[in-house]
Amino acid sequence: MNPVELIKKKRDGKILTESEIEFLVSNLTKGKIPDYQFSAFLMAGFLNGLNKQETAALTRSMLYSGKVIDLSSIPGIKVDKHSTGGIGDKTSLILAPIVAAAGIKVPMISGRGLGHTGGTLDKLESIPGFRTDLNLSEYKNVIRKCGAVLIGQTKEIAPADKLIYALRDVTATVESIPFITASIMSKKLAEGIDGLVLDIKTGSGAFMKKMEDSKKLALSLINTAKAFDKKVIGFITDMNQPLGNYIGNWLEIYESVKVLQGEKVEDLLEVTLNLSGAMIFLGGKAKSIKEGIEISKKMIANGKAFEIFLKMVQLQGGNISLLKQPEKYPKSKIHEKLFADGNGFLESTDNYEIGMASLELGAGRMTMADKIDMKAGIIFYPKIGDRIKKGDLIAELFTDKKEKVDEVKKKLLSSIKLSQTRPAQVKLIKSMLT
Amino acid sequence: MNPVELIKKKRDGKILTESEIEFLVSNLTKGKIPDYQFSAFLMAGFLNGLNKQETAALTRSMLYSGKVIDLSSIPGIKVDKHSTGGIGDKTSLILAPIVAAAGIKVPMISGRGLGHTGGTLDKLESIPGFRTDLNLSEYKNVIRKCGAVLIGQTKEIAPADKLIYALRDVTATVESIPFITASIMSKKLAEGIDGLVLDIKTGSGAFMKKMEDSKKLALSLINTAKAFDKKVIGFITDMNQPLGNYIGNWLEIYESVKVLQGEKVEDLLEVTLNLSGAMIFLGGKAKSIKEGIEISKKMIANGKAFEIFLKMVQLQGGNISLLKQPEKYPKSKIHEKLFADGNGFLESTDNYEIGMASLELGAGRMTMADKIDMKAGIIFYPKIGDRIKKGDLIAELFTDKKEKVDEVKKKLLSSIKLSQTRPAQVKLIKSMLT
Repeated sequence: MNPVELIKKKRDGKILTESEIEFLVSNLTKGKIPDYQFSAFLMAGFLNGLNKQETAALTRSMLYSGKVIDLSSIPGIKVDKHSTGGIGDKTSLILAPIVAAAGIKVPMISGRGLGHTGGTLDKLESIPGFRTDLNLSEYKNVIRKCGAVLIGQTKEIAPADKLIYALRDVTATVESIPFITASIMSKKLAEGIDGLVLDIKTGSGAFMKKMEDSKKLALSLINTAKAFDKKVIGFITDMNQPLGNYIGNWLEIYESVKVLQGEKVEDLLEVTLNLSGAMIFLGGKAKSIKEGIEISKKMIANGKAFEIFLKMVQLQGGNISLLKQPEKYPKSKIHEKLFADGNGFLESTDNYEIGMASLELGAGRMTMADKIDMKAGIIFYPKIGDRIKKGDLIAELFTDKKEKVDEVKKKLLSSIKLSQTRPAQVKLIKSMLT
Repeated sequence: MNPVELIKKKRDGKILTESEIEFLVSNLTKGKIPDYQFSAFLMAGFLNGLNKQETAALTRSMLYSGKVIDLSSIPGIKVDKHSTGGIGDKTSLILAPIVAAAGIKVPMISGRGLGHTGGTLDKLESIPGFRTDLNLSEYKNVIRKCGAVLIGQTKEIAPADKLIYALRDVTATVESIPFITASIMSKKLAEGIDGLVLDIKTGSGAFMKKMEDSKKLALSLINTAKAFDKKVIGFITDMNQPLGNYIGNWLEIYESVKVLQGEKVEDLLEVTLNLSGAMIFLGGKAKSIKEGIEISKKMIANGKAFEIFLKMVQLQGGNISLLKQPEKYPKSKIHEKLFADGNGFLESTDNYEIGMASLELGAGRMTMADKIDMKAGIIFYPKIGDRIKKGDLIAELFTDKKEKVDEVKKKLLSSIKLSQTRPAQVKLIKSMLT
C-alpha cells in the first residue's frame, strides 16, 4: 500500500477499507509514515468525512496500537462513563463509587483539563498524595479491592491516539466527529469494559455548543461502541451553566464529597443519578435506568458510596483525612465575594466565560505545560430561572492571583444576563439515545 | 499570526489575505512552520480552492522566497514560453532560437522529465558537454551574446516552490490548479520576463486530459501573469498523439535540428510557429501573431535560427559537431522496427502509453533518481487520420534494454486504434486565450 494513494482516495471522497486505515495508523505509530503525510490525510478526512465503518476502523487501529487491558480475571461486569466535559462537571467522582457500591466494576481512565473545562485527573490530584499514574497491575489491584479506579492514560494505552491528537491540535483538525469519536473510544475500549454510558454536553460551556452537533457526536460514539459489541447508552445533557456550584479542582472534590455524604445539590444530582442509574442498568444490577437511579440513591443514603470513595482514594495514595476535615485544606490568599449589580431573573450565563474565569484564577491551564493552583476556583450560586436582587451573593472567588480579581469579577458579571420575566426552566437531560 | 488559525480559515472555506499567505510560505521556507502544518494547509487549499487573488498571493510569496533575476541591463524585450509538457514536445528547442533571431530575448528556465513526458533539460544534456546548471552571471552572459538561454532551476530561484512541490508530491496535493499555477508562475516570473506565451496541452498524453481542465489551468495562469503586469497569450494545443515523430532525448534534439534546418514536420511546425509567432508579437516585433509566424518562417529559411541554436549550445558548453554530423552520435545496441498488424485508418493513439513505452526503453525516469539513456527512444510515424496497411512501418525503437523490446512493441501496437472509416482531422491549436 502507498500512503499517497490512500490520502488521494480520502481526498477524492472515497471510502477507505479497514486495512487501509490500519496501514496508515500503524505506520504512523511505527514512525514509517511521516507526520506531514498523516496531517494531509487528517485534513482530507476532516473535510470529506469518515463513515461509520471508517470511524470504527480508525478506532480499532488506534485501540490496537497499544494494549487492551484484560479484566476477565476480575469478576463482575465492567461499565464506564465518558463525558465530553463541562464547567463544574464532577459526576465521575460521585458516580464511580455509587456504581461500584452497586456491585459493578468501574475502570475509569480519565483526562486532564485544558482551556475552559477541568479534568478529573487534576481534580483528584488536588487530594494530597493521590496518584493517577498507576501501572496496569496497580490499576487492576485497586479495582479488585474497591470496585472502582480512576487513572490517567498510560503509555501502553492507544499510543496512536496521543500522536494523532498532537497532530490534530496543530493542524486545525480537532473538531471532527469521526476523529473525536476514535480518540474517545480507542481509550475507553482499552479499559476492558463491557458497557459504556456517554454524557454528551451541549451548550455554551460545552465542546459542542449546538444540540445538532452534540446529537451527531452522540450517535457516532454509540455506533462505534456497538461496532465493538459494547452495551451503550448516551445522554445529551445541558451545559449552559455550571453543573453544581463549585468550579475548581479541590472545590469540586469538596462538593463531590458533600454529595456523597447526602447533600442535595439538585442539578448535579440529577445528571449524576441518571448516568449512574444507566450504568447500573447496563451492568445488569437493575431492570431499568429508573431502578438504577433508586439503587444509586440508596448507595448514597446507606453511606456505601462514600465508603468506597474513601477506600479508592486511600488505595491510590490519597490523604483521606482532608476529605473528612476539609477545613484543614490550604487556603487561597484571596477569598472574595461577588454581589449582583442588578435585579431580575437569571436568563442565561455565558458558561464558557465562567470556565475561563476559573482558569484565570489559577484553576486551569491554557497549554498542557501550565501549572494548576489546586485551591483556586469559583463557587457560583445562581441557576437559570433564579430571581436575583441587587446585592445578592453571586459568587465566591478563591485565588492567589490578586491582580486577576477585578478582571474576573467583571467577566463573571458580564457573563450573566438578567431579564424581567421568568425564563423557562432548563431541561438538564435533553435526550437519551441508545 | 498563528498557523493553526490560518489553516482553519482555509479549512472553513474562507479567503486568506495576501499577508496571511506570505506568512505561511515565508515561514515554511525559513523552517519556522513545520511540514505537517503546511501539508494540512495544502490539503485544505486543494479541497476548498484558492481564488484569483490568493493564487496571485501564493505565486508572489513563492517568487519572492528567492531571487528575481534582473535583466534590465540587457537591451530588448524578454519573452518566454511555458508548456505543460507532452510526448515529443520539443517546441522550446526550436522556438527559442527563432524568437531570438527575431530580436527578442528568450530567458528560459526549464524542467526535467518525469513519468510519461520528457524534459527540455534532459534533451539538451544529450548533447555532450551541454551545461544546464549555469549560474546567474553565466545565464546573463549567454542571453546577452546569443539572445536565448536554456537552463534549469537554480537554488536561488523560488526555493519555496521546491519545498512546496516536494510536499505536494507526497501528500496527494499535486493536481490543484492554484498550486500548479503558483509553481509554474513563480519560476517563470523569476526569470526577468516581460511577456509569456503558454502552451497548455490537452489529451491522452497531457497532464490535463480534459479540455475543461486545460482551459481552467490556462485561465488561471493567464490571470496570474496579468496580476504581475506581464503580457500573456495562452494556447490550448492537442496532445492526443506525439508532436512530431521523434520521442527520446537525443532523438528530439535531432528532429529539432532538422526542423531548424528547414525540414517540414507539419504538426510540430504548426504548434511551434504559433507559439513563436505569439512570442514575437508580444515582444513587439510583429503587429500580429500571423505576422510573427511569417517572421518565424523567415528566421528558419534564412538560417538565422539554426545559427543562434548552434551559438547557444556552444556558449553552454555543448559539442556542436554532433549537431552537424548526427550520424556520429553513439548508437543504441538495439534498433528494431515495428510494423502494422492490421489495415485501417489511425483513429486514435493512447499517447500516455507511447510516452511510457519510450520511458521503458530508457528515455525517461519514474523517479528523479533514475538515470536516462540519452540515445533511447522511439520514432513514431503515423498520425491520426493516416491510412495504414498491414506491414507498414509504424515505429522504430532504440534501446540498450533487449528485454524490454517485445513488451514495448506490444504496448505500442495496443496503443493505436484503427477504424474502417476515416476519422475527422485533429485540430492542433484548439483554443487561444488572452
